Amino acid sequence: MKKDELSLSDVFKCTYDKFDNGVLLVSAGSDGRKNIMTIGWGLIGILWREPVFMVAVRDSRYTHELIEETNEFTVNIPGDDIGEAIKLCGSVSGRDHDKFKETSLTAVAGKNVQVPIISECLLHFECKVIGKTQATPEKLSEEVLQSCYPRDDFHTLYYGKILSVYGEEC
Amino acid sequence: MKKDELSLSDVFKCTYDKFDNGVLLVSAGSDGRKNIMTIGWGLIGILWREPVFMVAVRDSRYTHELIEETNEFTVNIPGDDIGEAIKLCGSVSGRDHDKFKETSLTAVAGKNVQVPIISECLLHFECKVIGKTQATPEKLSEEVLQSCYPRDDFHTLYYGKILSVYGEEC
Repeated sequence: MKKDELSLSDVFKCTYDKFDNGVLLVSAGSDGRKNIMTIGWGLIGILWREPVFMVAVRDSRYTHELIEETNEFTVNIPGDDIGEAIKLCGSVSGRDHDKFKETSLTAVAGKNVQVPIISECLLHFECKVIGKTQATPEKLSEEVLQSCYPRDDFHTLYYGKILSVYGEEC
Repeated sequence: MKKDELSLSDVFKCTYDKFDNGVLLVSAGSDGRKNIMTIGWGLIGILWREPVFMVAVRDSRYTHELIEETNEFTVNIPGDDIGEAIKLCGSVSGRDHDKFKETSLTAVAGKNVQVPIISECLLHFECKVIGKTQATPEKLSEEVLQSCYPRDDFHTLYYGKILSVYGEEC
């Protein structure tokens, strides 16, 4: 399997297209406990002079708790063969479920972060949080509030400096 | 000149690569006064179920004042032939300068927004702000604070739903 370092330009299309079916956000606590969360949103580009992957995590999530501890995450782009795992990681909480165990996905050490990557995925972004902002109701459109926040369960937006992106172009 | 509707996947590489030399953010007030600002940062992807272009604008800028009035902006990707205009738009304030006049760039009506596009550019994103967040010092890394905020002049991050992207693939 090719695991070369890639440019953001090369991997945007694959990443963007895969959001439709879900991509996998991995986080870990300072004691090493780890979690997988399925995400369908993300922004990629340049911010604060750095290449950045932005992910949105509701403050109530276990993933939020873990990122707050280590300020790191990985984003892993799956192929078409792990649909059931993507579904499971998007439907239960890591507080009650060991999602690596239940999906049989394999955690492999990151190159530049303590958070693992998922070896079954095609493409991996390793990210270090360099900033975050808070989604707040007074600064969102009515449409966004109704469509995404019926329960006032707002997101922290984490801006991860992309330390490394590697895998297979897809 | 081809001005077809394009997909984000098709235009990411061009947009991302052009950040290095500056791309042009256009805003307009509710009374039609308009401005151009050179930006080197931006994030593209999906947020709140919508295709989004995020731009960062310091609260002190004239562009901030204008976006606050209309909640719209366009991002225009230049070719290699308007370097002087890019420089001017990044070095003076629209409060004191009519940058369209001084650069001889041409404002053309947007298709879906009241803010104009710049016809000399290759590629145009028309965006409607659906949310914004505030960069605040306690949520930024030390590196970002030192590198980008020596004068505590923080950014509003505007998330523009991409209503249309068109022009030439580059």
